[in-house]
Amino acid sequence: MANSIYRASILQSYSQLLFQPCLSNKHCVPKKTNLLCFASSQLNPARSEVSFCIGTHLIPHPNKVERGGEDAFFVSNFKGGVIAVADGVSGWAEQNVDPSLFSKELMANASSLVGNLEVNYDPQILIRKAHAATCSKGSATAIVAMLERNGTMKVASVGDCGLRVIRKGQIIFSTTPQEHYFDCPYQLSSELVGQTYLDAVVSSVELVEGDTIVMGSDGLFDNVFDGEIVSKLAAHSDVVEAAKALAKLASNHSLDSRFDSPYTIEARSKGLDVPFWKKILGMKLTGGKLDDITVIVGQVVSSAASPQPT
Amino acid sequence: MANSIYRASILQSYSQLLFQPCLSNKHCVPKKTNLLCFASSQLNPARSEVSFCIGTHLIPHPNKVERGGEDAFFVSNFKGGVIAVADGVSGWAEQNVDPSLFSKELMANASSLVGNLEVNYDPQILIRKAHAATCSKGSATAIVAMLERNGTMKVASVGDCGLRVIRKGQIIFSTTPQEHYFDCPYQLSSELVGQTYLDAVVSSVELVEGDTIVMGSDGLFDNVFDGEIVSKLAAHSDVVEAAKALAKLASNHSLDSRFDSPYTIEARSKGLDVPFWKKILGMKLTGGKLDDITVIVGQVVSSAASPQPT
Repeated sequence: MANSIYRASILQSYSQLLFQPCLSNKHCVPKKTNLLCFASSQLNPARSEVSFCIGTHLIPHPNKVERGGEDAFFVSNFKGGVIAVADGVSGWAEQNVDPSLFSKELMANASSLVGNLEVNYDPQILIRKAHAATCSKGSATAIVAMLERNGTMKVASVGDCGLRVIRKGQIIFSTTPQEHYFDCPYQLSSELVGQTYLDAVVSSVELVEGDTIVMGSDGLFDNVFDGEIVSKLAAHSDVVEAAKALAKLASNHSLDSRFDSPYTIEARSKGLDVPFWKKILGMKLTGGKLDDITVIVGQVVSSAASPQPT
Repeated sequence: MANSIYRASILQSYSQLLFQPCLSNKHCVPKKTNLLCFASSQLNPARSEVSFCIGTHLIPHPNKVERGGEDAFFVSNFKGGVIAVADGVSGWAEQNVDPSLFSKELMANASSLVGNLEVNYDPQILIRKAHAATCSKGSATAIVAMLERNGTMKVASVGDCGLRVIRKGQIIFSTTPQEHYFDCPYQLSSELVGQTYLDAVVSSVELVEGDTIVMGSDGLFDNVFDGEIVSKLAAHSDVVEAAKALAKLASNHSLDSRFDSPYTIEARSKGLDVPFWKKILGMKLTGGKLDDITVIVGQVVSSAASPQPT
């Protein structure tokens, strides 16, 4: 056990958010930045209820800018707010299949099913029904988070999209990626050999006002360390600016061949490294990971206190 | 996104468990190993119900063996099973307070409150009531996990005790430590300046048969990497043996001044390292962390299929 008895209260305040009443949707545009602040509940505007105030930013892979990349996402103001990211598996291009079709259709279907009675506001069932409704050939990783008005956020994830919850300047909750082997994540697929909603990791966490969540594709988490996420959030109280700053940081790292990224650290831990003769010369595998980068930043706000649409 | 389309199913089987009908309790004995397999529900023995089969192992700090160290824990067979660890803050010894009293009383109180109606099988409320009932001077970190028969495991944690869930050879869920600064964790205290149940991180995860959970004090997680936890579990299907192997590994690392432990990696990331002149000579801060080490390993078994007491 640590030796230090705690003697003082440490607090970090979060600034109030700017409000831009624009709604992002599944057809995300390269480098488009969105902000969604949900209004207070019309049915039950109790002060204790919470909802998300959301900013998003997507930067496609430099070689895939024209088609907007293979990531897709959506946000919804249903109940406390729903956010989701899907990341199309690029290997399908080798079979002349556009890898973005599956992820985009999956998110489109999920978006339209959010309020479905059978979904019952359960992210795992949302994944099941959205997957079943998706006709495109391909596969994708996917993560869905649904916030209840009481602060409970349910999360279902298949693969290596991720989510962090930051409270008072610390990460207090993280999802963990699932993969078959290095760089081959669990994935929802048009083929029978892929994973299904039954393979999802299903978890939940109790959020409180002032918490910030960061959801993203692996293009974020393979290029940016958790400590950097915390630092960027501390520097940007505006969720739009925070999402943009995180995506740009990930993009910069992905282009930096000398950056010792989370991706290359994991690669080396799996035995993937530079040839032996380079190792002798003191070299090691480094560099970021070129990829589509999707970032969603959500701040938990009191519904009664959140800015109203004008 | 990864390039690899998944084409084959990867499975890892877990062997059946041995059964030793012995019950551990809060008065944990140094190096004592316990196993608790819960019998099937008498009221509703549906096959889909699950419970924990638990092994425990505690190794006290080498300098604190006589008093059994400052960690405390309990396990209970209420519903799907309840497990908890508390870790007394050693700094109290400087004020002539035995740091083990608070953690032991906290766990004793929690153990007796597990079935309390007001607790309502909620780990955060259990922490609140156990903390309120604790009269000893001191402070402790604490984590409580409560498994529902349907597979939902609720977790509440204050500080840097931890929990991992392992499924098919991968960690799929981790708690995240909370600290004010390096080596000063959030802590439940006899003093007003400490934290309370309101500071707990409250989360839950859906478990399925075959999942394994590892709970421990920071003496485990500061000395053993997640990959090592997965490897040890793969090598020991018996939960008692797994708990013992993990505790021994943590103990060995804690005594190894050359081991680059999670603890020293975190220390260096916070700017704590050897003096500058040693750095020039290529040296760095290394070594495990001498500490009390508590490990609880739980395997999720079908209640109907779990071994019966003889």
